[in-house]
Amino acid sequence: MTPRGTGLTIDCAATADVIVRALRREVERVGFSKVTLGLSGGLDSAVVASLAARAFGPENVIPICMPYVKSNPESLTHGKLVAVSLGMQPRVEDITRQIDLYFESHPDANRARRGNKMARERMTILYDCSMAEGALVLGTSNKTELLLGYSTIFGDSAAALMPIGDLYKTQVFALAESLGLPREIREKVPSADLWEGQSDEAELGFLYADVDALLLELVDRRQRPQALHDIGFEPGFVEQIRARLRQQQYKRKMPVVIKLSSRTVDKDFLYPRDWSG
Amino acid sequence: MTPRGTGLTIDCAATADVIVRALRREVERVGFSKVTLGLSGGLDSAVVASLAARAFGPENVIPICMPYVKSNPESLTHGKLVAVSLGMQPRVEDITRQIDLYFESHPDANRARRGNKMARERMTILYDCSMAEGALVLGTSNKTELLLGYSTIFGDSAAALMPIGDLYKTQVFALAESLGLPREIREKVPSADLWEGQSDEAELGFLYADVDALLLELVDRRQRPQALHDIGFEPGFVEQIRARLRQQQYKRKMPVVIKLSSRTVDKDFLYPRDWSG
Repeated sequence: MTPRGTGLTIDCAATADVIVRALRREVERVGFSKVTLGLSGGLDSAVVASLAARAFGPENVIPICMPYVKSNPESLTHGKLVAVSLGMQPRVEDITRQIDLYFESHPDANRARRGNKMARERMTILYDCSMAEGALVLGTSNKTELLLGYSTIFGDSAAALMPIGDLYKTQVFALAESLGLPREIREKVPSADLWEGQSDEAELGFLYADVDALLLELVDRRQRPQALHDIGFEPGFVEQIRARLRQQQYKRKMPVVIKLSSRTVDKDFLYPRDWSG
Repeated sequence: MTPRGTGLTIDCAATADVIVRALRREVERVGFSKVTLGLSGGLDSAVVASLAARAFGPENVIPICMPYVKSNPESLTHGKLVAVSLGMQPRVEDITRQIDLYFESHPDANRARRGNKMARERMTILYDCSMAEGALVLGTSNKTELLLGYSTIFGDSAAALMPIGDLYKTQVFALAESLGLPREIREKVPSADLWEGQSDEAELGFLYADVDALLLELVDRRQRPQALHDIGFEPGFVEQIRARLRQQQYKRKMPVVIKLSSRTVDKDFLYPRDWSG
């Protein structure tokens, strides 16, 4: 049994307040007053939508539901439910025809390829909305996903701003409850819904509660493996997660530029993102 | 008249050699032995394809031509010409139907939105090929484009590796000649071909030769604006490019994560991309 730390407990009201103020600051900084996000019907996007509604008012949030024909019908129902409960008009962009058209000439593609193509198609739709309406694209990745690389590169991991990217999944659950999100959303089994019956925890091979407790020790508390074994984490699990952290690092970095000059973009040309110097 | 520095001259043979060796090293490091790239029919992708063929042999390079119905027909002809001249089998993935399907419900979209959607669709196809065949996605951005942000975010700027990302456009021209690329490719007017009649230099509002000379002074030689005025750069041009460098910085950075903990991904969780810890 994996130890469950107490360090994952957050002050939900204070956390929501910090995020709402940061959202306003970041969106204002780029000269926008609206945001857009994909509403999957799941927990993470519901939390981000709720925080965005607080920050900008529901009329300035553009939530887009992007079902595929084989998506769980509940996903669309839940996405709409979230939007309506927050006083927003949900848009629906069905991605089935584009996706199926592409795979007509790649009939042997497995579900991972299909799922990645869907995640990336959804990103292109959010960015199109961004340009059409001057709305910043909010990502819905959480810290667990970012650290485990549990995302499609240039798909759901591609966004302008990550409001809950520094909260572990178990912390997002707590925040969802304090935000008063509908019980249907809070109690469903987490799933990327990229294929039938997909479940995050079954696909990952461990529980969010377990991996969050371990990531807190490894990442936030910088504990060495031996110390983690001593307090009861299973050595194989510790090694599996440490290896995954390293293997997925590329998703947290910009593309590699082969260095040829004295000042290479992203190696020596080092300014902060909000460089105004 | 903008001064033309001599600092842009490169040793083409040595440059090609450095890139070829770096390509092999980076691709081997991730456990791949093949690469894929989009062949637009333009100069940059032709140069990258040629270097990739040297690095891995043409049989390990998967060049994909991805025309849209309104693309200049010459683009496809030139893309195929490049592939065949390098001993490769070009694949063709027409993106017309997916793109048109999406814009059926967005008929008022302007050409910039349409062009961005096309650039992103092409990225999704390269990444699908990457997963299907274990081929690393090569980007074809050059240093001029990266610094000016002259690209579609999460579109043509999205790749695993940028072989010519540290070469200015004028240096890519020189390299193309030394690599013996077909004259048709080297002498055509640079264009992203996202709409009819598009030309890079007309859209940007200045010539590559001029902006490369200025970027060399600003970025590589870290010259102050006054020093550049003194040696003959027009003050308005200097300010325009400095502002653009800053405005486009976001395209060179990962998404902003709102900070809530002591160790935030991309703020405090700072390991190199090839972290093996």
